Amino acid sequence: MKNLTDLADIPPIQVWDGIRARRVQGEQVTLAIVELDPGAVAPEHRHPNEQNGMVVSGTMTFRIADEERELGPGGTWRILAGMPHSARAGAEGAVVIDVFSPIRADWDALPTLDLESPRWPPG
Amino acid sequence: MKNLTDLADIPPIQVWDGIRARRVQGEQVTLAIVELDPGAVAPEHRHPNEQNGMVVSGTMTFRIADEERELGPGGTWRILAGMPHSARAGAEGAVVIDVFSPIRADWDALPTLDLESPRWPPG
Repeated sequence: MKNLTDLADIPPIQVWDGIRARRVQGEQVTLAIVELDPGAVAPEHRHPNEQNGMVVSGTMTFRIADEERELGPGGTWRILAGMPHSARAGAEGAVVIDVFSPIRADWDALPTLDLESPRWPPG
Repeated sequence: MKNLTDLADIPPIQVWDGIRARRVQGEQVTLAIVELDPGAVAPEHRHPNEQNGMVVSGTMTFRIADEERELGPGGTWRILAGMPHSARAGAEGAVVIDVFSPIRADWDALPTLDLESPRWPPG
């Protein structure tokens, strides 16, 4: 694996209905660039991996335990290991960064999709 | 600390000359949103923290060991623990994501700047 890679050269994986991710995978951190279709839902779940993230474009309603907010570009989250969380993309969908440690090795089992242009960056 | 926070509400820290970072700090991952002034340089260095990242806006020339490239939005890097790396922002500067694990506890010693509007997102 090269260490300098364009997002457009990384094939996406299917995470949930209407939710795809491209990964920059290290040994300790998964940096994921995630595309959510309009209204796509990540149902409440939890995992041992800590997860921090930020909206890059679009909007998303995010819930962590009892805290819920709509986030636009620059909106961030911090989900310590094991905390229940859920999210729902807004009417235009969203592109977000999600980082995990330990790496999301369980994602290796998800289906890899054909290489296609990422929704972000534009152009 | 709240778990859902806007970038604009996070005070930056001074990392290098012309390079500032805002952090979403977890226990295992530091998610940093880093602003580089035009031409700002992160001189070659290395650290035990693994570091993955991506350009959000602007351009940057990135070098990891013997691999060097100019990256624009969507350009990514993967720096395993201990690998030497350096970077130089392009003529318009850059805003980038850098994620580290273990967390950059050493950054706690850096000066915290006044709260100011982040260069990204625009507006």
